[in-house]
Amino acid sequence: MKEFSSNSISDAKRQWQDTTLANTLKKVPERRNHFESSSNIVLERLYSPDNISDDNYLENVGFPGEFPYTRGIQPTMYRSRLWTMRQYAGYASAEESNARYRFLLGQGQMGLSVAFDLPTQIGYDADDPMALGEVGKVGVSICSIHDMARLFDQIPLDKVSTSMTINAPAAILLALYIAVGKRQGVEPNKLRGTVQNDILKEYIARGTYIFPPESSLRLITDIFRYCKLEVPGWNTISISGYHIREAGSTAVQEVAFTLANGIAYVQAAIDAGLNVDDFAPQLSFFFNAHNQFFEEIAKFRAARRIWAHIMRDRFRAKNPEAWKLRFHTQTGGSTLTAQQPMNNIVRVTVQALAAILGGTQSLHTNSMDEALALPTESAVQVALRTQQILAHESGVADVVDPMGGNYLVEKLTNEIETLANEYIAKIDAMGGALQAIELGYVQREIQDSAYAYQQAIEREKQIIVGVNKFTTEEEQPIDLLRVDPEIERRQVQQLKDLREKRDNSKVSELLTRIETAARSSDSLMPLFVTAVENEVTLGEICRTLRVVFGEYRPDARI
Amino acid sequence: MKEFSSNSISDAKRQWQDTTLANTLKKVPERRNHFESSSNIVLERLYSPDNISDDNYLENVGFPGEFPYTRGIQPTMYRSRLWTMRQYAGYASAEESNARYRFLLGQGQMGLSVAFDLPTQIGYDADDPMALGEVGKVGVSICSIHDMARLFDQIPLDKVSTSMTINAPAAILLALYIAVGKRQGVEPNKLRGTVQNDILKEYIARGTYIFPPESSLRLITDIFRYCKLEVPGWNTISISGYHIREAGSTAVQEVAFTLANGIAYVQAAIDAGLNVDDFAPQLSFFFNAHNQFFEEIAKFRAARRIWAHIMRDRFRAKNPEAWKLRFHTQTGGSTLTAQQPMNNIVRVTVQALAAILGGTQSLHTNSMDEALALPTESAVQVALRTQQILAHESGVADVVDPMGGNYLVEKLTNEIETLANEYIAKIDAMGGALQAIELGYVQREIQDSAYAYQQAIEREKQIIVGVNKFTTEEEQPIDLLRVDPEIERRQVQQLKDLREKRDNSKVSELLTRIETAARSSDSLMPLFVTAVENEVTLGEICRTLRVVFGEYRPDARI
Repeated sequence: MKEFSSNSISDAKRQWQDTTLANTLKKVPERRNHFESSSNIVLERLYSPDNISDDNYLENVGFPGEFPYTRGIQPTMYRSRLWTMRQYAGYASAEESNARYRFLLGQGQMGLSVAFDLPTQIGYDADDPMALGEVGKVGVSICSIHDMARLFDQIPLDKVSTSMTINAPAAILLALYIAVGKRQGVEPNKLRGTVQNDILKEYIARGTYIFPPESSLRLITDIFRYCKLEVPGWNTISISGYHIREAGSTAVQEVAFTLANGIAYVQAAIDAGLNVDDFAPQLSFFFNAHNQFFEEIAKFRAARRIWAHIMRDRFRAKNPEAWKLRFHTQTGGSTLTAQQPMNNIVRVTVQALAAILGGTQSLHTNSMDEALALPTESAVQVALRTQQILAHESGVADVVDPMGGNYLVEKLTNEIETLANEYIAKIDAMGGALQAIELGYVQREIQDSAYAYQQAIEREKQIIVGVNKFTTEEEQPIDLLRVDPEIERRQVQQLKDLREKRDNSKVSELLTRIETAARSSDSLMPLFVTAVENEVTLGEICRTLRVVFGEYRPDARI
Repeated sequence: MKEFSSNSISDAKRQWQDTTLANTLKKVPERRNHFESSSNIVLERLYSPDNISDDNYLENVGFPGEFPYTRGIQPTMYRSRLWTMRQYAGYASAEESNARYRFLLGQGQMGLSVAFDLPTQIGYDADDPMALGEVGKVGVSICSIHDMARLFDQIPLDKVSTSMTINAPAAILLALYIAVGKRQGVEPNKLRGTVQNDILKEYIARGTYIFPPESSLRLITDIFRYCKLEVPGWNTISISGYHIREAGSTAVQEVAFTLANGIAYVQAAIDAGLNVDDFAPQLSFFFNAHNQFFEEIAKFRAARRIWAHIMRDRFRAKNPEAWKLRFHTQTGGSTLTAQQPMNNIVRVTVQALAAILGGTQSLHTNSMDEALALPTESAVQVALRTQQILAHESGVADVVDPMGGNYLVEKLTNEIETLANEYIAKIDAMGGALQAIELGYVQREIQDSAYAYQQAIEREKQIIVGVNKFTTEEEQPIDLLRVDPEIERRQVQQLKDLREKRDNSKVSELLTRIETAARSSDSLMPLFVTAVENEVTLGEICRTLRVVFGEYRPDARI
């Protein structure tokens, strides 16, 4: 701006406030006394150059593909390759889920994302008494290599990337994936994908943990070490703010607690003797795309900038690949309403657009019926089409970081960065994320935010269309998907057959070797791969590890 | 930006291009050699401060509510009052349409927008042979004050604002509205609303003209004069780019041809002896919100800036109210697809968001089924909910001009302004909009753009999801609304009864007075009001005017 002067603009703004604005406010009051973001950041009436006048563009914003990556981690972003359209899916048995994956790939989906049922997530086979009534409910039931092979039947693992939402038993599911790849003739170094593998947020928000923290962190660093050598195209962890946000956190808390967990993982790996420049390029993140459009865009940009500084300045990583925060995004499940389900298409569109404008690497768009049941095929199709329309019709993928320079977004990016760094400093002072979680600090902060949000809804300060305003008496019925209870019986029968036919002495031997290795500091990943290849089940491996590691019980203080 | 220097950023950008970018492009090509907007504006890879370094912020962008209104026409925008949610609706008879309006108001709609059927739009009563088979099809059939009274039954005209999409017979429908208001006890100076009344774009694109240009312009300026005195809260015209865009123009052409038409109306009114500062504050505009998100936002901002300059610098208006471009927006009907109708909810969301971020005063969001039939109640509800979710859940209404400063948007705003001004200069050189239309220039320019767009779709350079890519074999059926053919018979019968019962000598006398006035230069509006109050029909008045003014026949050159 040729005649740019921060002072002259501040002066002019003051004059505008005293004349044009003051005259209007005398006649027409604003809708509220006070506007603020989800993170209680005050939203000013108007953002102008003076709001970001303290910025040094080159240092703080810079160019895409360069530190601090505010404008994106690649210099060409979606002009080269669109984000990966990756719908989280899986239910009932491996066969049903396989059919859904092949439907999605046929519809133009670019990567897979596996939802496991609860028993699988907490390490129980389908025939375990703990699994009763839960088999195949919220995801697919996977017990043995046979399930995993059916899950990826006719899906070539060298052609597709696969994300698996699995945490406590992440190493075992990764072993199963490697084993199925081998059966297909695909070497591990050709596999691409992600295991969520983020146990800290399970203690905070999601609840599908098994082992105590130290053993969990050991399994995680074991994956880091193994993948660096054997599966270099794999994202070894997906450090997840998604569930923190779903539990009711603000955008700032989502960034802060996620990155604080990230710091804990990096530190744990360094403490286990790994080199930060080796493992850090394989770390990835997972964020929520919530409703507040501009705050969400700023959140993604702030997260990239903070992480780049953490990796370069705090952990002294030299490899620029270690500085880049790469992330998957899912639109906000908790923002969907059971009332007037088609309204959710609108919400998902706005959230998906924010994720894209924020520079996400991959994206799941929720289906309109997810507040009611598992998504039907037609609802999933609309969700995927949402991404395709944004990619191919809206033009937003044609310019890199098209929101750059936006006064509001740049200012919010700065504010989110500052506030998140304050949280991270507080957590550091407590001794790190694990300690902050054990003290219940993180959980309490989230609970306070969730409570404030619920209060806002109850007082109609926050309107939810179709819920506390614009309600309707009769609802349009939509088709719902139900899981056949027969699935559980079939899965149990298959396990029974497996246990009769397999080489059970080999199974015992391998479980003993796993137990021995778990008691030592030996690497477990290679053993897991051998075990699953020899038809040892997920539940059996987890039972063995439970004996050695014990189970995590949340402290009463939390 | 403290250390801001346009040069240092240009240098840094060049360095980024030569290193980070060049290295990436060697490995990963971009999806296309060339990215461009709908208006063939080249989309650069990255926009940064150097792209707008020639701008003078204060002169070119400035503050909302102040010249040149780039950031909006009010200083507080939606922080004070949300845009008016105004769904274009009307079908079958006055009763059916009245029920739909009351449904919409009950759902939280804030203003009405009346769709008339084709016979009404071209000035034929329902019993005219020209009306056969068209009564109530694309809008409501209105012939007499009785229809108009039923249309607004139990809707207090001092509480609601009403937009009427009516052009050639706009004066008569406005007279009917005034007459119904009086019956309700509402004085004309309490009425708020809009008549489209934009005949030039009918010659260009929409086709529902009746009279030749000079007589049409006389009726239009007659409305300007009358409303200034009698209906000061009324928008006397809605100068419409919407249909120009629907006919296949680019965003730049939409702005240019609309504002050129605006210039023609202002000039015609000045030539008729009106004072620009008197009538110009009652002019309004109507734009399309098409698919290309950023170009659309920039389009609205550019249109405001150009119009402010036209009114202040060209027409020497002194009244700031005359400088402000106020506009209604409708999402792009032609962008909707009959295939996979729920995809249209996504398109409409993106388009509506662009209109809001562009600072629209009111908004119609299309229903997902509009490519198939008249919208059903449930589809209209989703369309209205789209606006409500954007207003109340996305946070985009909480900051004034939240896109300000965005490098891409500010640059596109400048480019659209330049290109549109070039078109306006060309049209000026031809002698103005009317001459450019009579020469067929405007129509040809639009046809060329429409052809290029169709070619892009056929060559799959432009992907339309569900049409030329991501198609499906079986479509989900959705409910469709059909107009009962019985409506036409009933409407004809009602007219027959009216003509039997009314004071036909009074009717004859009034039609004679209208004919005499039309042959002179007397004002017609007061006579129209008296005539409709005495049960003279729309078709009868138009027939009388047809005798005096003749009918417009497009030139073969066009």
